Amino acid sequence: MAIPVSPLATNLPDLPPIDGVRLGAAAAGIRYKGRTDLVMASFAPGTTVAGVFTRNICPGAPVDWCRAALPGGYAGGLVVNAGNANVFTGKAGFEVAKTTATEAGKLLGVPAGQVFIASTGVIGEQLPVDRLTAALPALSKNLSENGWADAARGIMTTDTFPKAATRIAHIGDTEVRITGIAKGSGMVAPDMATMLCFVATDAKIPPYPLQRILKRAVDRSFNCTTVDSDTSTSDTVLLFATGQAEHVEVPEDGDRILNNFATKLGEVLLDLAIQVVRDGEGAQKLIRIDVTGATTARSAKRVAMAIANSPLVKTAVAGEDANWGRIVMAVGKAGEPADRDKLSVAIGGTWMARHGAVVEGYDEAPVVAHMKGREIKIAVNLGLKTGCATVYTCDLTHGYIDINGSYRS
Amino acid sequence: MAIPVSPLATNLPDLPPIDGVRLGAAAAGIRYKGRTDLVMASFAPGTTVAGVFTRNICPGAPVDWCRAALPGGYAGGLVVNAGNANVFTGKAGFEVAKTTATEAGKLLGVPAGQVFIASTGVIGEQLPVDRLTAALPALSKNLSENGWADAARGIMTTDTFPKAATRIAHIGDTEVRITGIAKGSGMVAPDMATMLCFVATDAKIPPYPLQRILKRAVDRSFNCTTVDSDTSTSDTVLLFATGQAEHVEVPEDGDRILNNFATKLGEVLLDLAIQVVRDGEGAQKLIRIDVTGATTARSAKRVAMAIANSPLVKTAVAGEDANWGRIVMAVGKAGEPADRDKLSVAIGGTWMARHGAVVEGYDEAPVVAHMKGREIKIAVNLGLKTGCATVYTCDLTHGYIDINGSYRS
Repeated sequence: MAIPVSPLATNLPDLPPIDGVRLGAAAAGIRYKGRTDLVMASFAPGTTVAGVFTRNICPGAPVDWCRAALPGGYAGGLVVNAGNANVFTGKAGFEVAKTTATEAGKLLGVPAGQVFIASTGVIGEQLPVDRLTAALPALSKNLSENGWADAARGIMTTDTFPKAATRIAHIGDTEVRITGIAKGSGMVAPDMATMLCFVATDAKIPPYPLQRILKRAVDRSFNCTTVDSDTSTSDTVLLFATGQAEHVEVPEDGDRILNNFATKLGEVLLDLAIQVVRDGEGAQKLIRIDVTGATTARSAKRVAMAIANSPLVKTAVAGEDANWGRIVMAVGKAGEPADRDKLSVAIGGTWMARHGAVVEGYDEAPVVAHMKGREIKIAVNLGLKTGCATVYTCDLTHGYIDINGSYRS
Repeated sequence: MAIPVSPLATNLPDLPPIDGVRLGAAAAGIRYKGRTDLVMASFAPGTTVAGVFTRNICPGAPVDWCRAALPGGYAGGLVVNAGNANVFTGKAGFEVAKTTATEAGKLLGVPAGQVFIASTGVIGEQLPVDRLTAALPALSKNLSENGWADAARGIMTTDTFPKAATRIAHIGDTEVRITGIAKGSGMVAPDMATMLCFVATDAKIPPYPLQRILKRAVDRSFNCTTVDSDTSTSDTVLLFATGQAEHVEVPEDGDRILNNFATKLGEVLLDLAIQVVRDGEGAQKLIRIDVTGATTARSAKRVAMAIANSPLVKTAVAGEDANWGRIVMAVGKAGEPADRDKLSVAIGGTWMARHGAVVEGYDEAPVVAHMKGREIKIAVNLGLKTGCATVYTCDLTHGYIDINGSYRS
């Protein structure tokens, strides 16, 4: 089945090189025909790494591999394949990850334990590792500083457009660059991370502060999005810092000096996370949900996620129906502190319900016009305290059923 | 939009009278045209009542009314309307419920506080109470012992078939009858109860034990079903015991003597709950999920519900795809104790994955045949301890999007 490009697609930005990163893509024929499905990257000596992975209790072998490699703190290479997730494949699956890392390590001249691995695609089938390792030698010879766009395309599965974002940050007076790519379309309800996202920077940041700021940025970006409430077994976000930029030294507790870097990293991740939602399976509309007035930020996020994951809210948006009654229902089922008689709901900036009842005589025209657009804004004020949260999701359409109800074969 | 009758529909069983219950239906024109939408029942003096309601924190005014009336322990009448849920309607909405109970009480010669009210339909619009009270006098004169089938039809909204179940139970040596009706199709993810369900018996049971056995039966029936993970604001289960049967007296702590009654009540509720799932919006297949080997029954139920609410599992079943990888994903996202390498999955009785990996060479033919059927059985063994649970859901199809993505008007 050919899936049309999402109407919410964004254009791939210009992706200048990151000093110390070379990458490329190849067609290994793991599952897809006539397209790239294997991505490799090499990192300059001394590159530090941070990672955040799925909380799904049935993670794939590549996630196991990365978790074991992460405490080392340094990365020499990355291999990613699309088409087979190498999940629920038992000991054989772990051997596949190990073989991949070992072969790539030999080609790049780094220990296997410094090669990070990610796989995405079908669950429960053995990954044909021979095809993968057969394609690695030629691929390793063709890595380039300009390979970012190819890499963004090579990790796609049901994605309809490649996803990338880049920002310039300052550490002290020195400019550093942060560039990331991501894939993801369905099975998107990140708990700790979502789907696959790889970010690199030329900044020189020790592993510990790198991990701390990555985790915080993931919590505020990918972990605030959902397509279908289903948490993947392969969610992986990796951040590589090549240390090629010449800036003031970042100490182990370098939070302060990294303020601007952390802000820009957050922007890159949020940009990528929203691109994933824009490519949500079958998505026709991007939905932003702002919850304010909750008892805590955590509570606000749970309420926002209850709205974002409600099939009835998502189908109403697909039908361009400003059905705020379903929003009220979703708030009420979240299990968080709320008071029906203090609750207010707005769509597209128009308050339709205030303090537990419909606003008599509110102007329907701007709401109707807003619902016909591509970007829908829902605001809920719980009227209790100051906790707030923003999450992003997409509508639920026939496209989602088409994509996921079709046979695998 | 005309919604075709669910292919999973069951026939309405014969519904003999329950001594002490008279009921009927009328067309009040609250929302629907050319069909009944108002149901009334009267109960013999001394009828006890038990009730279980939604845990949604934004309940409708009728739920507020019933919660206030329930501690009295006795019921004289019941009024149910379809087409408007009287939810999120503020103080005016509570006045509507009060007016309805007051007018019905006058007609039936009972206090308003003994009249139970339920409403189902659109959220956030004021219920046109004049139409309702205008229809009550004629309706109250036409109540009949044989009105059960009419009542089952009169409470339907997006339901495509009426739902009822009846059983005979024994208290001591005496036969008593239990009959219930229910409605529900979408917004079905009962927390404490689901949608509307009204059950009556001629047994004579004091309010306290009646409430206790109802709660237990609801937990094991309605609370084990989900259509779309959305918990309604109007969920209501009411059980009326008219006391017309002449059996040994049931004491306040009458658990033992009510063993058979509790079993049969459980059968009635489970029968009705499965009928609601069979009429799940857009449902083409009924899915039964058995989870065993969990650390506790509660944990098993959460895992089973994570599978039942996974859009990816539900669309795979719709597509007749035995995609057990998605089942593994759903187990893993449930947040309950599980060990990937002890996990086994069967579909239609064929174990496709055992102990964390695919069963090499399992016979696909019976699985493919099973997936083409109307009733799909998924079994998951977590391989940890002895906790188990069974839940019921339906597949996710284009029909769900059609029904819920259409404009309200």
